[in-house]
Amino acid sequence: MRAFVFLLVASAVTGQNVPEPMSQQHEFHIPNFKTESGVTLPQAIIVYGTYGHLNAAKDNVVLLPSYYRSNYHGYEWMIGRDKALDPEKFFIVSTELFGNGRSSSPSNTPEPLHGPRFPVTTIRDNVRAVHQLLVDQLGINHVRALIGFSMGAEQAFQWAVSYPDFIDRIVATSGTAKCYPHGFVRLEGQIAAMTNDPVFAGGDYKTQPSKGLAAFGLVWAGWLYSQEWWRKELWRASSPPGTTFQKILESFRTRYESDANDLILHCRTWQQHDVGTTPGFDGDIEKALKSIRVPVLYMPLQQTCTSP
Amino acid sequence: MRAFVFLLVASAVTGQNVPEPMSQQHEFHIPNFKTESGVTLPQAIIVYGTYGHLNAAKDNVVLLPSYYRSNYHGYEWMIGRDKALDPEKFFIVSTELFGNGRSSSPSNTPEPLHGPRFPVTTIRDNVRAVHQLLVDQLGINHVRALIGFSMGAEQAFQWAVSYPDFIDRIVATSGTAKCYPHGFVRLEGQIAAMTNDPVFAGGDYKTQPSKGLAAFGLVWAGWLYSQEWWRKELWRASSPPGTTFQKILESFRTRYESDANDLILHCRTWQQHDVGTTPGFDGDIEKALKSIRVPVLYMPLQQTCTSP
Repeated sequence: MRAFVFLLVASAVTGQNVPEPMSQQHEFHIPNFKTESGVTLPQAIIVYGTYGHLNAAKDNVVLLPSYYRSNYHGYEWMIGRDKALDPEKFFIVSTELFGNGRSSSPSNTPEPLHGPRFPVTTIRDNVRAVHQLLVDQLGINHVRALIGFSMGAEQAFQWAVSYPDFIDRIVATSGTAKCYPHGFVRLEGQIAAMTNDPVFAGGDYKTQPSKGLAAFGLVWAGWLYSQEWWRKELWRASSPPGTTFQKILESFRTRYESDANDLILHCRTWQQHDVGTTPGFDGDIEKALKSIRVPVLYMPLQQTCTSP
Repeated sequence: MRAFVFLLVASAVTGQNVPEPMSQQHEFHIPNFKTESGVTLPQAIIVYGTYGHLNAAKDNVVLLPSYYRSNYHGYEWMIGRDKALDPEKFFIVSTELFGNGRSSSPSNTPEPLHGPRFPVTTIRDNVRAVHQLLVDQLGINHVRALIGFSMGAEQAFQWAVSYPDFIDRIVATSGTAKCYPHGFVRLEGQIAAMTNDPVFAGGDYKTQPSKGLAAFGLVWAGWLYSQEWWRKELWRASSPPGTTFQKILESFRTRYESDANDLILHCRTWQQHDVGTTPGFDGDIEKALKSIRVPVLYMPLQQTCTSP
């Protein structure tokens, strides 16, 4: 299990992917998608990838919801003939979160909802949109397994609460059923570090706020890896010989060359996450968690990430 | 021991001090103080406070070196007739770090070493200056005990390595003998969050960079308290009824209304700390730690602070 988690994180954070398995990219459009914030997106778009083929019984589906900043390729290290998810056997659907820059995001949505005016989409909004995609676009009414890392795990828990019989089993790694206050505080610090850059201009920037993105990356650096990871210099495992600590530290300054508003939206989505606020549970997370009927394999990954 | 640590932190972070015991404030001036950076301060000033009286044998001295941002009053919660340190019995010397805004600091040092041109003073620089103060100004050649919290603990370890027979015993809480890489990364993120504010202007600001200070405070908020502290809302213990999580979070935006360059200097002092680089130990921290002959009571306070 540890090896599994290590691989997952190594792939997620280093970008060192195995050769890409064959996939097809698709889009699902939802007109007038009402978000939990109350704001309606005239045209919500979910980008997703598929691997393999849906069988006639439509009972070979595996769902892989994306994590922070990732696109649908993020799970490919476990997809392949000799891997955990064989596309000859499974029909794999890997979906991208609102705000990743490809699905509907602050950066790609036209006015009047462009940039900082894009609503805070919740994990529940994302799960509802993907549910609609599976049912309406693909005609799928049942999923054999969901595997989610980080914000993908957040979606896993939400799926298990919102659609208790839809999925047979979930694997949730490095993510929780709620963003607890410490996680909220941590993300707020990152956002403040980014938005201080005068180029950010309240989100209506002309060019990306590079200094803000650098500060965002540096603050994140402290949270992404453990004290032990830094002390044992485990970054050496994925760095060329001669790499120094200073060089690794500097690399975080240019690590997040994404759109600033998109990065912030994902933070806000993360902060708002709470399966307890699902309708019917009165804000009671215990009640919501107890409602879960599907088997859950949960791996918190305390050694590597703190405060998911 | 836990109660002791809790009190120490509660006092340090809430500012809720017991009534001040009688103290006297002094200054010690060192002409041409050469820092480890190579830069010489024409006039280095150490501010310190004393409580009680030095006895004839000069053997009743307790040393309390200050911590991040604190002045010499920071330890008064344990000074008093019925407390751990009775000024009727002990002569207590509480010293202030370079960079706290009262001892020589970026903010109070004239050009050409004003603001961002002030050198990075190390923990060793501070310890050497205080040693000189004790010996030259107060005629003290021996100390019964040193108690230090956080950067005070960093000084404690440095004292034990640099002056192995000077002090009978040290108590070091929430601080280490070296700033390990994770601590370095964490502080770098805070600095980046602060310096993004355009008002900061590379350290030559006209007014304090309030947005930068706010971001600095928010990033620090995530590190100052544990996940448990936030989740159990332990802030309620020191807050008026009706205080909300949002209000506590906002309070961090105005928590650090100090001089920005001074705050950064303390981060840099912290980052540079390593008893292993003391002359004679070849950068080998194990060797330096093994040289310590004085009994050390060490309390890491893992529950409350991470990565000191």
